[in-house]
Amino acid sequence: VSAATPERTRRIRADARRNIDALIDAAREVFKVSGVDAPVREITTRAGVGLATFYRHFPERSDLVTAVFRHEVDACADTAATLAATYEPLEALVRWLRRFTEFVGAKRGLAAALHSGNPAFEPLPAYFQQRFEPALGSLLTAAAAAGEIRDDVDPLELLHAVSRLCSPANVDHTGDERMVALLIDGLRYGAKPKPRSAEH
Amino acid sequence: VSAATPERTRRIRADARRNIDALIDAAREVFKVSGVDAPVREITTRAGVGLATFYRHFPERSDLVTAVFRHEVDACADTAATLAATYEPLEALVRWLRRFTEFVGAKRGLAAALHSGNPAFEPLPAYFQQRFEPALGSLLTAAAAAGEIRDDVDPLELLHAVSRLCSPANVDHTGDERMVALLIDGLRYGAKPKPRSAEH
Repeated sequence: VSAATPERTRRIRADARRNIDALIDAAREVFKVSGVDAPVREITTRAGVGLATFYRHFPERSDLVTAVFRHEVDACADTAATLAATYEPLEALVRWLRRFTEFVGAKRGLAAALHSGNPAFEPLPAYFQQRFEPALGSLLTAAAAAGEIRDDVDPLELLHAVSRLCSPANVDHTGDERMVALLIDGLRYGAKPKPRSAEH
Repeated sequence: VSAATPERTRRIRADARRNIDALIDAAREVFKVSGVDAPVREITTRAGVGLATFYRHFPERSDLVTAVFRHEVDACADTAATLAATYEPLEALVRWLRRFTEFVGAKRGLAAALHSGNPAFEPLPAYFQQRFEPALGSLLTAAAAAGEIRDDVDPLELLHAVSRLCSPANVDHTGDERMVALLIDGLRYGAKPKPRSAEH
């Protein structure tokens, strides 16, 4: 009934995806400078995308803020697997927590929006948990299995602890890194050394 | 020129001090139930002190809130010396940090007032630091000297870290104690064991 061949549908979907990605990328940059209430034109100009396209994908400002937040969460959560494949378990864990610290610190403008009471943002803490809990959980499990950290720490509690230590709401950030490092040393305290098996 | 003998002056001062203490005690209890904006009469009735006396000592609500905050800070800071005299260094440190955690958690109403932007409260963070930094500092020094914890941790950074982990502003408090315990284990990680000297 329509002229939409599978090939054409794929191309349209790819175009839409490209526009959405460009808008999210532009919004991330613009939010950093002008905050989450930055004018739409700043974002569309930067993305090279028209206003109509913008409003088709993001009818409300909360849609855009949500998309940016989820993008940042995904980018951070996805590094866990990369780090696990690249580094020893403890090193991967430490590097990921540092990456997560950056995520927390960078969401200054987003954090205010998320706590604005807008019901559109209600699903986001669940998304935070859904992505970060398994990401950190697998790093903790690997490091504990390697005998480098203790095995009794709940990943979600640790995520919240690091979020609180480095929250953008804090006035003074001079000790942030040292206090996260102290938490990590707490993980290392009381680790059960891995029984040395026959290695070859 | 006056009938104020030294004896009489002393007695008046003691009466005033007793009234002030009774009002602060009453205010602490009333604040817990009715918040820091509780009616004056609730406080004076509980203290058994007249309204005129109340307003002579605390002309503004911020005077009363300040007095209660300082009282809470003093009570917590003063336990450091008692604990140090009673327990082994690490045990004294752990118990004091637990006491400080209670202080942080209990100042729910006070915290909101302190962050209200009222300039009357501006000196209070300095008071917090002035009393707590040496209190925790001496416990850290003693525990490090005993070889039970590391010696490179800044007391003020640790105070801020515990405050953030247990802040009344946090929604979820289930992991608070475990995360403070993890920080403490971080202190224990990498402690330089005390060289065993000849004991007799």
